[in-house]
Amino acid sequence: MVNVRIYVTYKESVFDPQGDTIKQAIQGLGHTEVLDVKVGKFFDVTLDPTQKELAQAVKEIAEELLVNFNLETYKYEVMEETK
Amino acid sequence: MVNVRIYVTYKESVFDPQGDTIKQAIQGLGHTEVLDVKVGKFFDVTLDPTQKELAQAVKEIAEELLVNFNLETYKYEVMEETK
Repeated sequence: MVNVRIYVTYKESVFDPQGDTIKQAIQGLGHTEVLDVKVGKFFDVTLDPTQKELAQAVKEIAEELLVNFNLETYKYEVMEETK
Repeated sequence: MVNVRIYVTYKESVFDPQGDTIKQAIQGLGHTEVLDVKVGKFFDVTLDPTQKELAQAVKEIAEELLVNFNLETYKYEVMEETK
């Protein structure tokens, strides 16, 4: 089994309203040390690599379901492999 | 400036309905290689470490705003430091 973490974020050019709201809330609580906040999602996916090549599986899952490519982009990293 | 990524996930004992729904949707698309999906959020926070000690700032922000400790837990890692 392989555990893969897929990170989905807004593209640089896209405004992140949730992050902006959280930044303002944090600063409103007195945390002037906080300069910026961006929000993202991640998906911890457990895969069976004997069934499909890892990079191909992640690409298909991201494109078909997890990522809205108009607004978002993604990266992934392999967290753990167990035999 | 320091960029810190704060990961917020459900506790192990808490059911993740969004992850379960996504798993079923992925498997429904024919991805039988996907065995499990868990969902989490992350917050990329840019901090000014001259104003407050980093670990203390992260702890306060997480406790006051980002994490619901009844259901969730968090970890963080320092992504980048620039002078």
